[in-house]
Amino acid sequence: MNKEAVYHRPKDQYAYIYDAETLHILLRTKRGDAHSVDLIYGDPYEWDVSGWISSIVPMQISGRDELFDYWFTEVKPPYRRLRYGFKIASGDETIFYGEKGFNDTAPKDDIGFYFAFPFLHENDAFTPPEWVRNTVWYQIFPERFANGSDRNNPKDTLPWGSAEPTATNFFGGDFEGIIQRIDYLVELGITGIYLTPIFKAHSNHKYDTIDYMEIDPQFGDTETFKRLIDTCHKHGIKVMLDAVFNHSGYFFEPFQNVLKHGENSRYKNWFHLHEFPIKTKPRPNYDAFGFVKTMPKLNTQNPEVKDYLLKVGAYWLREFNIDGWRLDVANEIDHQFWREFRTEMKKIKRDVYILGEIWHDAIPWLSGDQFDAVMNYPFTNAALNFFAKDEINAEQFCNAISHVCHMYPRNVNEVAFNLLGSHDTARILTTAKDNREKVKLLTAFQLSFIGTPCIYYGDEIGMAGGDDPDCRKCMIWDRQHQDINMLNHVKKLISLRKTYPIFANNGIFSFLSADKETNHIIYKKENEKEILIVIMNNSNNSLNIAIPELNLKDLMIRDICNEKEFAAHAENLSISLKPYEFKFLLINK
Amino acid sequence: MNKEAVYHRPKDQYAYIYDAETLHILLRTKRGDAHSVDLIYGDPYEWDVSGWISSIVPMQISGRDELFDYWFTEVKPPYRRLRYGFKIASGDETIFYGEKGFNDTAPKDDIGFYFAFPFLHENDAFTPPEWVRNTVWYQIFPERFANGSDRNNPKDTLPWGSAEPTATNFFGGDFEGIIQRIDYLVELGITGIYLTPIFKAHSNHKYDTIDYMEIDPQFGDTETFKRLIDTCHKHGIKVMLDAVFNHSGYFFEPFQNVLKHGENSRYKNWFHLHEFPIKTKPRPNYDAFGFVKTMPKLNTQNPEVKDYLLKVGAYWLREFNIDGWRLDVANEIDHQFWREFRTEMKKIKRDVYILGEIWHDAIPWLSGDQFDAVMNYPFTNAALNFFAKDEINAEQFCNAISHVCHMYPRNVNEVAFNLLGSHDTARILTTAKDNREKVKLLTAFQLSFIGTPCIYYGDEIGMAGGDDPDCRKCMIWDRQHQDINMLNHVKKLISLRKTYPIFANNGIFSFLSADKETNHIIYKKENEKEILIVIMNNSNNSLNIAIPELNLKDLMIRDICNEKEFAAHAENLSISLKPYEFKFLLINK
Repeated sequence: MNKEAVYHRPKDQYAYIYDAETLHILLRTKRGDAHSVDLIYGDPYEWDVSGWISSIVPMQISGRDELFDYWFTEVKPPYRRLRYGFKIASGDETIFYGEKGFNDTAPKDDIGFYFAFPFLHENDAFTPPEWVRNTVWYQIFPERFANGSDRNNPKDTLPWGSAEPTATNFFGGDFEGIIQRIDYLVELGITGIYLTPIFKAHSNHKYDTIDYMEIDPQFGDTETFKRLIDTCHKHGIKVMLDAVFNHSGYFFEPFQNVLKHGENSRYKNWFHLHEFPIKTKPRPNYDAFGFVKTMPKLNTQNPEVKDYLLKVGAYWLREFNIDGWRLDVANEIDHQFWREFRTEMKKIKRDVYILGEIWHDAIPWLSGDQFDAVMNYPFTNAALNFFAKDEINAEQFCNAISHVCHMYPRNVNEVAFNLLGSHDTARILTTAKDNREKVKLLTAFQLSFIGTPCIYYGDEIGMAGGDDPDCRKCMIWDRQHQDINMLNHVKKLISLRKTYPIFANNGIFSFLSADKETNHIIYKKENEKEILIVIMNNSNNSLNIAIPELNLKDLMIRDICNEKEFAAHAENLSISLKPYEFKFLLINK
Repeated sequence: MNKEAVYHRPKDQYAYIYDAETLHILLRTKRGDAHSVDLIYGDPYEWDVSGWISSIVPMQISGRDELFDYWFTEVKPPYRRLRYGFKIASGDETIFYGEKGFNDTAPKDDIGFYFAFPFLHENDAFTPPEWVRNTVWYQIFPERFANGSDRNNPKDTLPWGSAEPTATNFFGGDFEGIIQRIDYLVELGITGIYLTPIFKAHSNHKYDTIDYMEIDPQFGDTETFKRLIDTCHKHGIKVMLDAVFNHSGYFFEPFQNVLKHGENSRYKNWFHLHEFPIKTKPRPNYDAFGFVKTMPKLNTQNPEVKDYLLKVGAYWLREFNIDGWRLDVANEIDHQFWREFRTEMKKIKRDVYILGEIWHDAIPWLSGDQFDAVMNYPFTNAALNFFAKDEINAEQFCNAISHVCHMYPRNVNEVAFNLLGSHDTARILTTAKDNREKVKLLTAFQLSFIGTPCIYYGDEIGMAGGDDPDCRKCMIWDRQHQDINMLNHVKKLISLRKTYPIFANNGIFSFLSADKETNHIIYKKENEKEILIVIMNNSNNSLNIAIPELNLKDLMIRDICNEKEFAAHAENLSISLKPYEFKFLLINK
């Protein structure tokens, strides 16, 4: 047995609170090394009493990536306390694994050998708002979604879509435009809007805030914003704003004060200034976002700054009843700030959603004390590499997605913010070299996976665009130039999430097969009542694909895309798929 | 290469803030598998600019346990942001390891391949009070240390030391007794006292609180307690109290109220009551410490209970200027409670010390947001198993202690509360089967290791005692019955900590050798100026031991136990040790 590959540590994703009475326990072993793993567990205070071990239950492989198998089970400890260890069998060898390492037998008199989950406290659980699980997000870059009113056009506003986007040009998108297009959004079926920043700022992207307490006049005023929120809420759409708290803009009053008064500025501790006088060249001599001089980093450790930003957070939540905060560059702000941010925001609105922008492994922010979710770029990368770029084959994709599923606890994955692109990346159609079939497969995967998907405005009508700023083109409203076929595809997928809970976020995800030769994948989502089987042919060959592992004989199978029902006549079912075709098959257990 | 053995994840003990400008980075590989590891790192925002990689530095093995090597280096990122990966060489193979896994080359255009430590925020660092590093603790069980006043003797107090301790008898130990013995403590050299609970309670151990706001009358009154604190502070001794917040006692007023009024009690949400009426048999039908009916578990998730306990914590800190809180059964209370506890206590006294009672892996409490230290039972187990019980040999001990050193960040280890015994365990002399030479070796290890040692009252004069309650005998004050030789040994060790900072807590610990045949160990502590070499013969044979790995020729070596200086005449020095003898050798670099 490869002992060095075996990994478990309580908390993080290997042992966590799933709900008020349930713990999830996982163990990692070398791929293919162990043929069975059992969980041995009991109450820490009656380990002896009950004949030394309360229970032993088999664990199941919940997924495997390139190197590892992940074994899973759940436990409901009656007194909410748990000591536990693992019995691992590999070949002829059986060993026991606990906090003290490996042993030939399960110690009967040394409870310290075992791992501890000392108490299941509900308030230590990761508890995102319930509504998030079933939300389909839609990201709007307000300057480019719709220009509803010419009265608030900024200086030199260009006619809608009349030019390529640059770092500095304006097309006059505004709140009035979003309000006027609400029917489009409702028909599309999305249930949450994520707006990139809307506060007064200098640039067209608004990530360089001038005033956190004011709406940028190009978007409207507070009345229009209230109307936007009301309109959305009336249509069952949540609204999430972008909190750019890592850095301010150059023209933020406190930074201007610092530029003017230097060492004598009362705001000098609001930033991280290395020396005086302040210089912006060759590099800023103050901390910034990257080395961008127009985005001076805020000193969130300064109680004054912290209080100010918490007030900003509270103001928009309380006065405008927004539903969520997306936190820009969240990973470069201190954990202490985010803990207080969560406490304060949840006090005001119990079910507000807090989403961090973190591109890398985000486990230190996902223990329940900081964020409800992060932008799930590991998902994005795997999906784009397989469906859009052909950089990895089906087997590698299966490994990568299984890895993603085991990076975080399951309740974290269930609300992961699964995006395929944003204002920061090239558009999916362009990444897929304009192959619309591949984009359709990609979105079919996104919308049938676990987590909450986010559609970047315009992707649903087949808009193209390279890296920023090219991905920020004006939304196309002329139906002649919209890809209606793509739009209907996305609408259909969203409607399936509403019709079939298992399609959305109510089932446990796993791969059934992934074939690197044919490049097809089969995965399932399963709950107590149903199994959803998804088959995807990510190749330009027609394939006849056998569904393995399930005994389907005589069960009724419904193809939920076209509502056809049929019975499987053999134990294993075979499905024919055209190039880039997919099928969603629903089975009642 | 055994890829499955390679482990790194940012935060926890593999990448952490050591001080305001320094990150520690570690990598785990299979023992003996890699012959070199380099850290590749740079600023996330100039990865390209600087020729794609800013720096590459070799890592050193900082220790190895049974299965793994641990590679270490430190980095001071100029902009406090870091992306990094590892170059691992094993045999003919060289691979690169980052967040996305393994690669044959170090990717130049995908920063996402690398691990991220996004920003070094000082307030996210683990920062225990500075004074703790050099404290030598002394644990007092007040009922049994000294009876200084007969006026506050509880009912049926027995003459001091006249009987074996039982679960229910009393000998009248009190604060006056401690005050009267202050000279003894000063002479011993300890600099901190940890008092087991002193609040009004029913039992002799006082872990079943009746009133958290009152001193137990058998110990004295608030005036006596103030005098005790003042006396200690005057002599440079800190005082830590025991906070029993997991559960109250049966006679705690709110629990009595619940017993009386059941469902109608206004305190019914102060506890975890399963049903009404409340029963104590056959098992309590409410949550308790273990299944002990006299210790009902407090509902620390209830804001009322939380506020009450935070007030208790604040009261004793503010009114009596205590220096620390030791938290009983800390692992069974919610993290959220401890985060608030830390915030509130540190507001009142910036350098208060917060010590959690956790017997198992405690990493989820040691991220800087909750505790300053935990009671280091993994250390205790390793030390007792080797020195006292002979259950493991020198090699296994070296593996076990190296494992302990790599369970937590180094700054956590530097203030770990290293105990050898307590009111909860048999006394070390009894565990060592009355072998006083072995106990002397054991304490020599404890006091020359990293972390802050704690001496359980009476161990320093060779008191014996089995498991609780036998380990709670009355302190022996008759010098005829004290082991003066042991006392002088402990005094000497404590004085060495004061004379030589490297002996205390100012040097990096590592093993030089550990021989399972002869059962001797050699370890060193090293800082910029000095090396302390410790040689211990844990066998009843005389040994001639060669010190490996260091070129000592012509350096002056000082034996700091007897202040003899000598020069090493060969490259490798040999030292003769009698059975159970040890040497502390100090070398100026």
